[in-house]
Amino acid sequence: MCAYPKPGNVDRCHDYADTRLEHFLASTILVRPAFERAGRGEGSIGELIREAVSLTNSHSGGNTHFGAYMLLIPLLLGNDIDGALRAIAETTVEDALDFYAGFSLTRVRMHGEDELDANDPASLEAIRARRMSLLDIMHHSAPNDMVAREWTEGYRLTRRGADLLKANGCGRDSIVASFLQLLASEPDTFIIKKHGAGVAAQTMQHAGEVLSGKRRLDEFDAECIAAGINPGSIADIIIASIYVALGEGWQWDC
Amino acid sequence: MCAYPKPGNVDRCHDYADTRLEHFLASTILVRPAFERAGRGEGSIGELIREAVSLTNSHSGGNTHFGAYMLLIPLLLGNDIDGALRAIAETTVEDALDFYAGFSLTRVRMHGEDELDANDPASLEAIRARRMSLLDIMHHSAPNDMVAREWTEGYRLTRRGADLLKANGCGRDSIVASFLQLLASEPDTFIIKKHGAGVAAQTMQHAGEVLSGKRRLDEFDAECIAAGINPGSIADIIIASIYVALGEGWQWDC
Repeated sequence: MCAYPKPGNVDRCHDYADTRLEHFLASTILVRPAFERAGRGEGSIGELIREAVSLTNSHSGGNTHFGAYMLLIPLLLGNDIDGALRAIAETTVEDALDFYAGFSLTRVRMHGEDELDANDPASLEAIRARRMSLLDIMHHSAPNDMVAREWTEGYRLTRRGADLLKANGCGRDSIVASFLQLLASEPDTFIIKKHGAGVAAQTMQHAGEVLSGKRRLDEFDAECIAAGINPGSIADIIIASIYVALGEGWQWDC
Repeated sequence: MCAYPKPGNVDRCHDYADTRLEHFLASTILVRPAFERAGRGEGSIGELIREAVSLTNSHSGGNTHFGAYMLLIPLLLGNDIDGALRAIAETTVEDALDFYAGFSLTRVRMHGEDELDANDPASLEAIRARRMSLLDIMHHSAPNDMVAREWTEGYRLTRRGADLLKANGCGRDSIVASFLQLLASEPDTFIIKKHGAGVAAQTMQHAGEVLSGKRRLDEFDAECIAAGINPGSIADIIIASIYVALGEGWQWDC
């Protein structure tokens, strides 16, 4: 949250009306018991994600970190990307049902016509009937959700973000630079769900123009905010990248 | 940290060159084991303060919360102001020596001619020879240090700050208003130590002018920052006020 501006996101410099900086910080504090349990290797992925959502659902700011929990809980259980992928490969139907129970506590937007809509009780029946693991659910969601794709594609963008962080040097400026580089190279599926693929493509282009010096970062940030364009999925992925990079010696403090 | 502007302090809107928002947030996370132990009633005040300093001393931002730990550790041990005062009354020479060991890890400014300078090994000898408890140390420091005065005067300003928070309503705007009201009514001893009594009195006056609408809050903030005027002790006291007010039903989230 200290890195700024992260265009379009709640950050140190601005809030959204319903979700403010203090909600993100409160979630960071409230989630700790779930993270500590995951760090000790206790519990299963779906149940830990459900606990993380439940712990952070007590304030008025709504969902702050759902996508981040999806990425961090396996990393905490497995210690690094390889370990996370091993934990993910072992998920079960129970993990899927727990995940949906957590999901239903949030107001996270689903793809409009999803046959496994978390708010539809029939989805749970379908998951049971088809014996879908949580990894199966992520394969189902991957075409429309880049966070799910991290599960199915080996944390590809998390890995790239961690490499960018290390290449860009220490501290919060490196986070902003790495965020912009991911934003310029990948359409954010959270933007696609809310505004459509055209807006996501335009956001990528504008991020690229910031990187090449053709557009000012603060103007890009103001444009995103004014239009409600919030690259929330790439923000989730950068959080996971920070976790991985810190584990590999990257320094936040310089 | 979300309440802003807190004139002259590191807050959401600005950093000092050496101490930045992320250092304050890192301390908040790092200190947790000491706070949890105090909340369970384990350990003694001096040793817990030393642990809190030791846990938060690993980053480059220097001291962020020393005064706040002095106020919060007794509150966590005692659960409220009455309980804190009971815990304080029981402090021993060991608490005093532990406190000095913690203090010596920081770069906190002492009163220039203090005969019990924490950086002078002779101070420890004097504390032992005179059998001074940590409360005795605070009586020694109280004339020049308003945080020490909270110990000797029954958390008087902490209490007033908590009442102001409740009177000013919920959320972060109430924190800013209550901070300004304390700042307008009490000279900050951290400012006195750094800039002298005249500057502290002027800061009080300017805070009062903000409250009466004669001075703009953002201009006052900018003036403080430009002159390096940092009301750090009142900031510590407001932290304790928030703790007390939350325990009495005040809402941070609205």
